[in-house]
Amino acid sequence: MRAAVSDVAWLRRMLDFEGALARVEARLGVIPEAAGEAIAARCHVRFFDIEQLGREARGSAGPVVPLVRALTAVVPGDAARHVHWGATSQDVLDTAAMLLARDALDLLLADLDRVAAACARLAEEHRDTVMVARTLLQQALPTTFGFKAAGWLVGLDGARAELVDVRERSLALQLGGAVGTLAALGDHGLEVAADVADQLGLAQPELPWHTLRLRPARLASALGAALGVMGKLARDVSLLAQTEVAEATEGGEGRGGSSTMPHKHNPVGAVAVVACAKRGPGLLATIFSAMVQEHERAAGAWQAEWEPLLELLRITGSAASATRELLAGLEIDARKMRGDLELSGGLLMSESVATALAKSLGRAAAQELVERAARECVQERRPLREVLLSTPEISQALGPVGVDEALDPEQYLGVSNRLIERALAAYRGAR
Amino acid sequence: MRAAVSDVAWLRRMLDFEGALARVEARLGVIPEAAGEAIAARCHVRFFDIEQLGREARGSAGPVVPLVRALTAVVPGDAARHVHWGATSQDVLDTAAMLLARDALDLLLADLDRVAAACARLAEEHRDTVMVARTLLQQALPTTFGFKAAGWLVGLDGARAELVDVRERSLALQLGGAVGTLAALGDHGLEVAADVADQLGLAQPELPWHTLRLRPARLASALGAALGVMGKLARDVSLLAQTEVAEATEGGEGRGGSSTMPHKHNPVGAVAVVACAKRGPGLLATIFSAMVQEHERAAGAWQAEWEPLLELLRITGSAASATRELLAGLEIDARKMRGDLELSGGLLMSESVATALAKSLGRAAAQELVERAARECVQERRPLREVLLSTPEISQALGPVGVDEALDPEQYLGVSNRLIERALAAYRGAR
Amino acid sequence: MRAAVSDVAWLRRMLDFEGALARVEARLGVIPEAAGEAIAARCHVRFFDIEQLGREARGSAGPVVPLVRALTAVVPGDAARHVHWGATSQDVLDTAAMLLARDALDLLLADLDRVAAACARLAEEHRDTVMVARTLLQQALPTTFGFKAAGWLVGLDGARAELVDVRERSLALQLGGAVGTLAALGDHGLEVAADVADQLGLAQPELPWHTLRLRPARLASALGAALGVMGKLARDVSLLAQTEVAEATEGGEGRGGSSTMPHKHNPVGAVAVVACAKRGPGLLATIFSAMVQEHERAAGAWQAEWEPLLELLRITGSAASATRELLAGLEIDARKMRGDLELSGGLLMSESVATALAKSLGRAAAQELVERAARECVQERRPLREVLLSTPEISQALGPVGVDEALDPEQYLGVSNRLIERALAAYRGAR
Amino acid sequence: MRAAVSDVAWLRRMLDFEGALARVEARLGVIPEAAGEAIAARCHVRFFDIEQLGREARGSAGPVVPLVRALTAVVPGDAARHVHWGATSQDVLDTAAMLLARDALDLLLADLDRVAAACARLAEEHRDTVMVARTLLQQALPTTFGFKAAGWLVGLDGARAELVDVRERSLALQLGGAVGTLAALGDHGLEVAADVADQLGLAQPELPWHTLRLRPARLASALGAALGVMGKLARDVSLLAQTEVAEATEGGEGRGGSSTMPHKHNPVGAVAVVACAKRGPGLLATIFSAMVQEHERAAGAWQAEWEPLLELLRITGSAASATRELLAGLEIDARKMRGDLELSGGLLMSESVATALAKSLGRAAAQELVERAARECVQERRPLREVLLSTPEISQALGPVGVDEALDPEQYLGVSNRLIERALAAYRGAR
Repeated sequence: MRAAVSDVAWLRRMLDFEGALARVEARLGVIPEAAGEAIAARCHVRFFDIEQLGREARGSAGPVVPLVRALTAVVPGDAARHVHWGATSQDVLDTAAMLLARDALDLLLADLDRVAAACARLAEEHRDTVMVARTLLQQALPTTFGFKAAGWLVGLDGARAELVDVRERSLALQLGGAVGTLAALGDHGLEVAADVADQLGLAQPELPWHTLRLRPARLASALGAALGVMGKLARDVSLLAQTEVAEATEGGEGRGGSSTMPHKHNPVGAVAVVACAKRGPGLLATIFSAMVQEHERAAGAWQAEWEPLLELLRITGSAASATRELLAGLEIDARKMRGDLELSGGLLMSESVATALAKSLGRAAAQELVERAARECVQERRPLREVLLSTPEISQALGPVGVDEALDPEQYLGVSNRLIERALAAYRGAR
Repeated sequence: MRAAVSDVAWLRRMLDFEGALARVEARLGVIPEAAGEAIAARCHVRFFDIEQLGREARGSAGPVVPLVRALTAVVPGDAARHVHWGATSQDVLDTAAMLLARDALDLLLADLDRVAAACARLAEEHRDTVMVARTLLQQALPTTFGFKAAGWLVGLDGARAELVDVRERSLALQLGGAVGTLAALGDHGLEVAADVADQLGLAQPELPWHTLRLRPARLASALGAALGVMGKLARDVSLLAQTEVAEATEGGEGRGGSSTMPHKHNPVGAVAVVACAKRGPGLLATIFSAMVQEHERAAGAWQAEWEPLLELLRITGSAASATRELLAGLEIDARKMRGDLELSGGLLMSESVATALAKSLGRAAAQELVERAARECVQERRPLREVLLSTPEISQALGPVGVDEALDPEQYLGVSNRLIERALAAYRGAR
Repeated sequence: MRAAVSDVAWLRRMLDFEGALARVEARLGVIPEAAGEAIAARCHVRFFDIEQLGREARGSAGPVVPLVRALTAVVPGDAARHVHWGATSQDVLDTAAMLLARDALDLLLADLDRVAAACARLAEEHRDTVMVARTLLQQALPTTFGFKAAGWLVGLDGARAELVDVRERSLALQLGGAVGTLAALGDHGLEVAADVADQLGLAQPELPWHTLRLRPARLASALGAALGVMGKLARDVSLLAQTEVAEATEGGEGRGGSSTMPHKHNPVGAVAVVACAKRGPGLLATIFSAMVQEHERAAGAWQAEWEPLLELLRITGSAASATRELLAGLEIDARKMRGDLELSGGLLMSESVATALAKSLGRAAAQELVERAARECVQERRPLREVLLSTPEISQALGPVGVDEALDPEQYLGVSNRLIERALAAYRGAR
Repeated sequence: MRAAVSDVAWLRRMLDFEGALARVEARLGVIPEAAGEAIAARCHVRFFDIEQLGREARGSAGPVVPLVRALTAVVPGDAARHVHWGATSQDVLDTAAMLLARDALDLLLADLDRVAAACARLAEEHRDTVMVARTLLQQALPTTFGFKAAGWLVGLDGARAELVDVRERSLALQLGGAVGTLAALGDHGLEVAADVADQLGLAQPELPWHTLRLRPARLASALGAALGVMGKLARDVSLLAQTEVAEATEGGEGRGGSSTMPHKHNPVGAVAVVACAKRGPGLLATIFSAMVQEHERAAGAWQAEWEPLLELLRITGSAASATRELLAGLEIDARKMRGDLELSGGLLMSESVATALAKSLGRAAAQELVERAARECVQERRPLREVLLSTPEISQALGPVGVDEALDPEQYLGVSNRLIERALAAYRGAR
């Protein structure tokens, strides 16, 4: 990912734009036929000194002016005069950024696919691994780890769908000339734009979008959503990995260890993902705030946009690869999960007991009995099972077998399995 | 809009949820048949003291607990015990928020439609109203006001499409019970959820989305995008309305006037819209940052989400109604627009002159001649026309008529008219 | 707090400004002497219909125009013509906002003082309550709960110092007239401003600050810092309150309980504080982004500023009162804290053992021995004490007593007690 | 600035920490005396392969582990075992970041001093250069360019004071060991910390601030405030530089020019500054949101903090140097400023005329007359002077000389000159 948004990648993508433009203009007779090939032939990274361009870019408020100058210098003969014909700096930068974003999205989507596959596997394998569900960080009711993983999967599917949609529909050519009218191309403006978009494999926008910034905003919000989904997953893992919980551990040799503190298994992947997720919203806000642009080119807002967008691509990429690694080595301790269900001495199952009792005693009586039993448990520090069995109305209604059934977390998982099926079906259907 | 997201609206929508839930559960035999109707019959705002509920909500960390208590109190007989059956507080709030968002989006979309219609009309009427296009707040080349309005229109179309998509696909029922498994509904969980979604006219999600917050995030980013698009339009208007530019004025009786400063025509609508647009990104960032939620209910992030979302609905609504009013009274001064094209003494048309000359002299010579003439203009403060005519190579090549044609802004508008057509066709096609 | 930033409070503070202005101008002869008292006498909330003003405010892009109109209507005779003399709307709003902020800060500081006192008490009482320190949510080394509370205290002291500084130095009068020159007050501008500042108890700024927005920005960042400090405290509490950790509980009757899930003790205060803390940064960003203001009154940025600032005051106030309540009822389970230190079977103390051994064996040999012992513990699931005693080099070097000492968490608390003293001394010194 | 926050600078500052720590520990007998010098002697950038460290840093979730490993490898003999003694990774990173911030602030303050000096010069030189003051981008009343520059100056003074305060008081050593207790340093913890702080020239904090993040937050908000102040200045310049306004131009050879559009003088400096200012708030929000950190080291929030902080240092530095250059070449067109005062045909001076008339006619009558005259001007498109002179009551009351005086912008500048004096005195006093 770092390579996909590197300075070399920028240079390559700006040259791709200049090359495609020259070829198309030559074919349509906007510039001499020979000039097209002559220019395109030089639109390769190897003809340029990237360090030199970088220095000049800092002096010229942007990389396009020095690039066009350097390209003009390497194109032989009269063709040099037709370099960058009819385009403006923003055309080059916006289009190159779109191409870069596409490359970055391809890498990101590949990683997210592996992340989703890992979640699907976990959902499948752990559909019967019962564990505690926690609300407000308090134990609430039983669930399964498979159901938790299915939740992550649905989130990933949603984030992926947004990113795919952005990749297909929002990444578009920008070509408008100085003010969006393509005046320097005479009558050929629309044809040139259509063909260049085609050559570069980008969507053709209805209008040049130089000051209509929905496209960068959409890209940013899809990246932000993906970060949010991965951040949720990583937050869960870091909580499950707590020493006192220890229901999941990030495995992998030497990973997260410490020689002076041999008992630690730091959830390094999860921490890295959460750190990326924390940086998304601020970058997103900057990109959205840059939508308010003046007239036909903004005096500041446009210039503020690309660094945050690149950073967003970079950190979403980092988060995806860290999530992939973390899931690849994730170790689940089903026994500890089962054990943590017992921490409340059965109180976790009160709702289940009340439901079971209601069949014979009616809901009102059932709830009252269970509430009373629960109070007894807490006050006398006795297990719920013992209290239930020693309460005549309850032991008569359910019998020991009925009590044990009602206290069994595996019997109180609701429709978790059917929901896992649904998540897996949707995941498979989307591919 | 203020009414659509008011406290009464919240109460109504929470009661809609409770009513639909009771009816569906009764039909499916989850609760006694009579209870369904008995509960639903009381799910009306008139049975509740909203001030009292508000006070209690502040004491209970949320409105649901007091509401359920109050509803239970007004439902007669045994049915009262089946109020809110199998649902959790978050189910009520998330679903009510979705219903509220739908109401708000409907109002917003109606306003945006009128805004778009006004832009379409401006694009149509002013397709030949030439004016200066400005980049970095400097005069650049000629354009038309119709083309500028077409740009606004395309932005509005894009924002509208996102909002419609969110309304149709992202607003979904939340019903998961305490931890998402719907355990308290036994085997009926999925059917109950499907039927309640149906009754409320909301999408049915693959999984309960209690801690998968893509839906609020999508809603927020669509609202943020709409604010950005309107902010751009309003920013343009406020710049055109500057005393020194005065190409557009916000009309309407008494609007923006000042008795002590009678020369002022404050662009009050544009200012209001820009103010709303400035507040979007920060709210958006909060909503995205709240995506990282712990386990089966977040300890803080979920609770941080709805106030910013409501505020976002409110300010987007305000912005849309202010934009509508501003466009309704917008006065365009075509004569001043034409006049501002002359400010540079013709230099604005240099690119056009070079293009015209290139036909007979070749591009290289043409550009050199024009650059020299431009320098003369600036140094000697003479109009370009005069310099061009007094330059033999140029006056021979073009003749006075040719020079005037090349200096005519109306002849150098590129494909602006075809682009306006495209924008209008897309606008009409989308409806 | 809600009252301190209510609509009535706004109205009262705007009238305070108008009253002070009239009195001062009358005294300095800018307006007739009688007018001063006549105007000031009507600058009381009871003369105004706040609902009516609210409706008109929405129509006039702000509350000042309708207020000045209403005030003019209730002031008898010729004095009415001198209402609001020489001031502009922004003067009224900015100054009223400063007065409001002062009221809100006073309430906030009072709550923060009680929060700090509670932390000081916890630091004092629990200086010897050993517990586990956790890094990356993993058990790391021993610490004390008193030291943790001392950390909170130092954070609160820092946040308080910033807020006090803002209250004393940043809350200033805004009075500049239409464009900051106070032209309508002739030669009396500076004296009027000085006296009005004096009357209202606000600082006198060097220049009118209508478009220099450091003051709101400073206020916002001090509030944001306070939210961050309280958020950290609340985050710690919510983690300590986890069912599996249970080292701290939010007490108070019925607080955080649930009838259907009797085992839950929801950390409702901590959750509320974290929720407020999550909303701070987005609001802060909006206020800072509004610093870029055009010329002598901004076209949007100024208008975007006050709602977020009020919201920031409101949520910081809520967070402070929730933190106060949460600390008032916080129950510490010292026994559970002690117990959690044993979870790693002594590995937590490896660093301590190595340090003890180094005295006789040298550091190199000591570390090697301990690392080897630690590996044995993990592989064979034996307690560290047992392994240490069964390793001849170690048992000889330390003897059983020495081993027990090295394994005793209370002996490995570094300078925590001296740091607690320092924190308490600083806390007391600052008062 | 780029150098001050480069990878080499990081490495140097981390080594400074390790060197100071070793020396102090040796002197206090925590590590062998010889080890101190042996380690410190190798704490120089030239002993390390920075590219290699970079690669390893990406693999180890941070640069400290590979650096300590590399440092250990280059320190000869037994001293190597005492490298990094008693410190934790966060100690190194936080302290190095503070040192880096100090270097960056020194550069920034130097640039800001030059910026302030330029503003002071402009305020002085242009105290009598009358121009139009604009509110909501509309001409409002006369002011002077000197007064505008004085406003910028006061903003810069305020921002500078905050940065100086942060530099002196908020940049502190972080040294706490694994969990803040300095346990590995036995009884020497406080002395070691005090001496290391002293050696590095950093403040000594009350407590280790590993999870108390007020310091980074304060640094960030001071930087954000500086960006806001410069953004306001640059925004004003970009508006004054508009082709239609042209009251100020960014000078400097070839600066902002365009060969195809010779009439353009792009305000490239102002645009660059505004672009930086737009990026501040999002970064600030991220840093504040990272204040909520878990226990004794955060699982994500800490790791999210430094990149945005460095970026903030970088862009504030860029903005300051761009502002310096922009002011150095700023060309003021006093004649155009004077001319723009006439655009409204005198209506701009209505308030002034009413004030003058009030002396003889009373305020009520004066205002009525002026309002009527203003309406006439607008309806009949006549200059105000003409209307005033042709209104008997007015021409009698003021006479032609009086009318001209009342219409003279230079006579209606309020206390602008005294305020300029005040701003200059404060500026000089602060140095």
